[in-house]
Amino acid sequence: MLERHDTNGIAHLRMNAPQRLNALSDGMLAALQTQIDSLKTDPSIRVVILSGAGKAFCAGHDLKEMQAGRASDDKGRAYFIDLFQRCSKVMTGLQRLPQPVIAQVHGIATAAGCQLVASCDMAVAAEDCKFGVNGVKIGLFCSTPMVALSRNIPRKKAFEMLTTGRFLSAQQAEELGLINRAVPADQLEQETQDLAETVASKLGAAVAIGKEAFYEQLQMPLDQAYAFTGEVMVENMLWRDTNEGITAFLEKRKPDWD
Amino acid sequence: MLERHDTNGIAHLRMNAPQRLNALSDGMLAALQTQIDSLKTDPSIRVVILSGAGKAFCAGHDLKEMQAGRASDDKGRAYFIDLFQRCSKVMTGLQRLPQPVIAQVHGIATAAGCQLVASCDMAVAAEDCKFGVNGVKIGLFCSTPMVALSRNIPRKKAFEMLTTGRFLSAQQAEELGLINRAVPADQLEQETQDLAETVASKLGAAVAIGKEAFYEQLQMPLDQAYAFTGEVMVENMLWRDTNEGITAFLEKRKPDWD
Amino acid sequence: MLERHDTNGIAHLRMNAPQRLNALSDGMLAALQTQIDSLKTDPSIRVVILSGAGKAFCAGHDLKEMQAGRASDDKGRAYFIDLFQRCSKVMTGLQRLPQPVIAQVHGIATAAGCQLVASCDMAVAAEDCKFGVNGVKIGLFCSTPMVALSRNIPRKKAFEMLTTGRFLSAQQAEELGLINRAVPADQLEQETQDLAETVASKLGAAVAIGKEAFYEQLQMPLDQAYAFTGEVMVENMLWRDTNEGITAFLEKRKPDWD
Repeated sequence: MLERHDTNGIAHLRMNAPQRLNALSDGMLAALQTQIDSLKTDPSIRVVILSGAGKAFCAGHDLKEMQAGRASDDKGRAYFIDLFQRCSKVMTGLQRLPQPVIAQVHGIATAAGCQLVASCDMAVAAEDCKFGVNGVKIGLFCSTPMVALSRNIPRKKAFEMLTTGRFLSAQQAEELGLINRAVPADQLEQETQDLAETVASKLGAAVAIGKEAFYEQLQMPLDQAYAFTGEVMVENMLWRDTNEGITAFLEKRKPDWD
Repeated sequence: MLERHDTNGIAHLRMNAPQRLNALSDGMLAALQTQIDSLKTDPSIRVVILSGAGKAFCAGHDLKEMQAGRASDDKGRAYFIDLFQRCSKVMTGLQRLPQPVIAQVHGIATAAGCQLVASCDMAVAAEDCKFGVNGVKIGLFCSTPMVALSRNIPRKKAFEMLTTGRFLSAQQAEELGLINRAVPADQLEQETQDLAETVASKLGAAVAIGKEAFYEQLQMPLDQAYAFTGEVMVENMLWRDTNEGITAFLEKRKPDWD
Repeated sequence: MLERHDTNGIAHLRMNAPQRLNALSDGMLAALQTQIDSLKTDPSIRVVILSGAGKAFCAGHDLKEMQAGRASDDKGRAYFIDLFQRCSKVMTGLQRLPQPVIAQVHGIATAAGCQLVASCDMAVAAEDCKFGVNGVKIGLFCSTPMVALSRNIPRKKAFEMLTTGRFLSAQQAEELGLINRAVPADQLEQETQDLAETVASKLGAAVAIGKEAFYEQLQMPLDQAYAFTGEVMVENMLWRDTNEGITAFLEKRKPDWD
């Protein structure tokens, strides 16, 4: 359901349930959580790429499974509470991984699938890809997806997507900031790989403390953000590898990193 | 002063004081507040369109009236305190309405008129429309309008508008996120109507809880936002109409909504 | 090291250490702080322009000086703590000045030099200018620069710059909101001067309270932001010069401002 293939410090996670458009079923969420838990403490991995098999990146929750969840005494309440908690744990778990996570997006990314793109640190998409938070069309407002979406794009554009169910083209998604860039479909894999390799070539410890600090400071008032990141800079400066990196730069040579 | 015309669940509010460029006079603010109070509890209305008669959408506060307010023992202090409180109540009242509010903008939207656009959930504007927060030109910095403006567009662009009084074109306003899109003037009414009808065709209760949750979660840290919207999703799932909406989708038929 | 030249209420600060690409050395930071302290209480200055001599605006911290700082018993810890505190004080000091500060950017603005651009209220840049937060390339993640950067541009774009070290073109910087606009290199000085003069022609006291309120309200929830800025508007209305500004506007004449 979720394939993992590691090469040169890059973990490729591929959602592989194409017949269900890689829906975030209980099984898919569990598989994602298992990989997040594994990656969290895996120092051999420096970057994660998340992609999907078949004709879509991800079409959101598994609606059949959700409907089946209603067949209980509480009409599904306990199941739904648990489901959205598990889903939110996956979404925030991607952001909390020490490694940058890049979404490699093709076909469609809708509802919680669009949330998955918004929850990754970066995203590259095929030019013919479409993005939507279209739950409103079936009476289920994309309330959890909007948490991630509204932290990526301007609010009036997010509001329109949420209340109309209309889709963004990949070009629009790039202009608004939902993805880093749109590329021709036949270059999607290579472009994503290039971005991953560029990040993977950097000092992993610096990227990891930087990523964590990035999201922490975003939620702080200005003075607190500077006090916090100033401390991060001091620790970063005191590492052996950073000393070596700066020395190598001043001596115009490659750093000798561990 | 403020006309209301309802058709098919869409309330059209039209500011009609063209000789004063639909200024937000005491009378206009009161009329807007009356309609907000009425709409708040009107389940027959699903979307609100706000437009203006004459050559401008809205030119901001009524300066003559404000100057007349100085003719009191306290030189107008009590009047001004009350005025800005009433104005802010209208602006936040639009955001707190359960129905999405769409600004249909033509001509100019300046100072508190620009704030009105920024305070609506969505906005469609004529291509030749201009937007400004130009109070600084007469020595009155647009401090309350900037609250809404700076939550719509990037900060350096907002700062320039505020300190220079320079105007944005409709195209610039679209690119920056102040409006959803600019359209030819002769299509403005139809495009706005189409957007309103698209939203009005959705399950009203879902749109209403979604709108409320949208602005609430924007002000929360990430984990709190997910905990909150997760609960919203659970309630939404348990509605009869959402059950029907999802079932209809899976059965490839139209939902039978109340 | 930092030249100051005042004309018509505009203070031109020019970093002048071109052989070190105007690096933010201890000396440069001290010179900037001295000018900030001086400008803070100088009512004759209405706008500040910050530029750099030589081929670059500013290339960030002075790496040689930082490496020399390691030659102490604590391997530089106390020095680095102090350095980042001094640097952050300069960055936030620009934002806390009563006068708007405009960055006039050419060549490159990298690491803390890019932070300097992001920390100014507005920025005009030459079309061939490049912007980067590229410390990650030498193992030092730009954690303090990202505080300013991530408050200027969408998060996925900021994340990519921080983890890849890739540069933005001036056009990209304009589209994302890091600068107000890119202009041909030979018009950079004039365009910046024009912007400064436009702001300087406004009522200084209104610009000053407006600037302070701008950043304060950005960090507040909506209702608090309106309560706060409403009070600012009331005080602004009660000034003699604002009364005169509005009266002059209504009488279609120029205001007689102090």
